[in-house]
Amino acid sequence: MSEFMVRQIGLVRSPLADRSAAPLQGFEGGPSAWLEFDADVAEGLSDVGIGDDLYLLTWFHLADRSVLSLHPRGDPANPVTGVFSTRSPDRPNPIGLHRVTVLETEPARLHVSDLEAVDGTPIIDVKPVLPGGA
Amino acid sequence: MSEFMVRQIGLVRSPLADRSAAPLQGFEGGPSAWLEFDADVAEGLSDVGIGDDLYLLTWFHLADRSVLSLHPRGDPANPVTGVFSTRSPDRPNPIGLHRVTVLETEPARLHVSDLEAVDGTPIIDVKPVLPGGA
Repeated sequence: MSEFMVRQIGLVRSPLADRSAAPLQGFEGGPSAWLEFDADVAEGLSDVGIGDDLYLLTWFHLADRSVLSLHPRGDPANPVTGVFSTRSPDRPNPIGLHRVTVLETEPARLHVSDLEAVDGTPIIDVKPVLPGGA
Repeated sequence: MSEFMVRQIGLVRSPLADRSAAPLQGFEGGPSAWLEFDADVAEGLSDVGIGDDLYLLTWFHLADRSVLSLHPRGDPANPVTGVFSTRSPDRPNPIGLHRVTVLETEPARLHVSDLEAVDGTPIIDVKPVLPGGA
């Protein structure tokens, strides 16, 4: 089994202080947040502009990586479901995938809409949304 | 700067033998491929079914992680662009994001449509596509 090292390239600055305050999915609405990037990757943001739709990839540093099945949303009324059919942060590789829209840009910072990640969440990648939502 | 360990949970079995043969984006069409998962995470696939739309996260193990700006698609005619506005596999954390549809399921294996990843590409996560494409 291979392992790979992911490096943190920035972090989320959000009014969401902890996981219990975060909505369970982005489409349920989250607050706007700032993404703060490390100076050594800021060059990679040079073509990100206001209105761009991006995928933000984060690392759920508080996750339980042993989870393979769970009650979705932590609600015992929901039948136990395989983790790969859920967006649970508790999963073997706790990577978060968030679709956001850019509201403002500053050097090494992006202000984005509707992000359910808590304050301090590590950022690991940013990608453009492609035609068709892929 | 924090670092995190990502573990390989499976691999892509595809007729695409190398990177030069892979189309540059999934929406340009790719062959169908099998996703083969490690036995110890197979339980997490228990609710994946035929027709499901999934995001597959892969690790581009052949990537150059020092790249911050590049000519998109490797074409010198394209202006140099910040890497976070591209889907280049060469990026600080070389995570691939692929939207696929499940064609067949077998124990610890999924047959999926249109995947541009080359044979042997490590799989690191699978997530459901949410309403609105998020």
